[in-house]
Amino acid sequence: MDKLDLNITIIGLGLIGGSYAMALKELNPKKIYAVDIDEKAIDDAEKIGIIDKGYLEADIPLKESDLVIICLYPKLVEKFVKDNINNFKNGAVITDVTGIKSEFIKEVNSILRDDIDFVFGHPMAGREQKGLKFASKDVFKGANYIITPTERNKEKNLRFVEELVKKIGFKNVMSISPEKHDKIIGFTSQLPHVIAVSLVNSDNLGVETGLFTGDSYRELTRIAQINSDLWTELFTGNKENLVREIEIFEENIKKIKNAIINEEKELLSEIMEKASKKRKEMS
Amino acid sequence: MDKLDLNITIIGLGLIGGSYAMALKELNPKKIYAVDIDEKAIDDAEKIGIIDKGYLEADIPLKESDLVIICLYPKLVEKFVKDNINNFKNGAVITDVTGIKSEFIKEVNSILRDDIDFVFGHPMAGREQKGLKFASKDVFKGANYIITPTERNKEKNLRFVEELVKKIGFKNVMSISPEKHDKIIGFTSQLPHVIAVSLVNSDNLGVETGLFTGDSYRELTRIAQINSDLWTELFTGNKENLVREIEIFEENIKKIKNAIINEEKELLSEIMEKASKKRKEMS
Repeated sequence: MDKLDLNITIIGLGLIGGSYAMALKELNPKKIYAVDIDEKAIDDAEKIGIIDKGYLEADIPLKESDLVIICLYPKLVEKFVKDNINNFKNGAVITDVTGIKSEFIKEVNSILRDDIDFVFGHPMAGREQKGLKFASKDVFKGANYIITPTERNKEKNLRFVEELVKKIGFKNVMSISPEKHDKIIGFTSQLPHVIAVSLVNSDNLGVETGLFTGDSYRELTRIAQINSDLWTELFTGNKENLVREIEIFEENIKKIKNAIINEEKELLSEIMEKASKKRKEMS
Repeated sequence: MDKLDLNITIIGLGLIGGSYAMALKELNPKKIYAVDIDEKAIDDAEKIGIIDKGYLEADIPLKESDLVIICLYPKLVEKFVKDNINNFKNGAVITDVTGIKSEFIKEVNSILRDDIDFVFGHPMAGREQKGLKFASKDVFKGANYIITPTERNKEKNLRFVEELVKKIGFKNVMSISPEKHDKIIGFTSQLPHVIAVSLVNSDNLGVETGLFTGDSYRELTRIAQINSDLWTELFTGNKENLVREIEIFEENIKKIKNAIINEEKELLSEIMEKASKKRKEMS
């Protein structure tokens, strides 16, 4: 098998970090290291052989790593970079998995060393569970990936990250500005989570709901099993975009509600046809 | 294989009628007939061997059928029963697949012959497509089924329908009143469809949305590919329940929106934890 001629360190062995380790291990890199504050996660990852060695502190593996993938909560990324700014290998490429970009990128870029290239990325993949034990290299299969290039980025490193994520299973890799990313993600990712949580919290039936559901309710609410710490950060970190998307959604709910109240059957049909057509075109 | 000692007629060879034919054929009934206004659907069903014979008119198969499964849109069921009231075999059991019950049952019961027992049922299963070509006996596997007994029903016929639907793959069969059914279904089935349609119609991104979605958006919007004629009937036929559920949902959306606007992180976490816990308990 071809070798990936790199040392890689993954920061954070949660669901996403663990999944990266599993997927990257298959590409046969020189060495793959991981850093986590949880000793058990490190032991487990070493035992199942998805990393060569794990560390509680980042300094040693960072010094020899050509690629660093930071899989931490948004707020912790900046702190991690700041704390380790002198530990990165000269010319290292860093990438991340953070779900919001604009403010975050400004903050991180302001503390970077000149020789380090941070290619900001967002794998649009996940699971409703958290932690290494739910990690899987299949998490990324067929998923979308967004790169948000900045003026600092070297073209070759942008291409390198794009090619790498395609190798581990991502299907579409799109490049857009951090601002556009945050607007889009407010709609395609954050709004669905707001909706799923609100739907489950609207349950006032007083029965065992699961006995009276079809696929629709189960599908719409799977992601209500949510990592509340992470999503509190994501929601408040993208407040303006998200609130605007929520309000557009509220208007659409109101429109269909009024059509039902007034029994405007033609209008109802139109509303549904429009959505149906748009959704069919998507897949 | 044991034989199901019955003649069965299925009225309507759409997605659900076709799926019933496929699933029931495996139980080896004496004869299984179908009625549809679409000659091609009949031909196809005969060719693939899921019915013994198809008819454009119902009179002949009804006269010898012990069980009749009406898989038509709600409004057409009453008309079908009225038009064929003299064609049913003496003592026949009829059942249906209608997604709303209260008003519908009153109307249908008022025109029934005394010797006929109509056991009203709601298979909580479907697909986002319509038509025989998407039918599959697997549609019902592991799904929920609701029976809404009325005073007219004979206990043995209620048990018969319950056992039959379990044999074709339904997992949970619950018996509740038509009124309770309509309230529950307003929440677990109709509200999710209202939400999915509204979410797709809120897309104002101006990009190819499918390139920027994760599983969450795709799952929340699959059912926006909706049969608008059918769901217009279902929504307006359960108007009061559905509007109440929409309004409870609107309140929950507003609650989370305000928490985001005010950056009330603890409240946001609480809201998410509550939903997360409830959803985890469901599965």
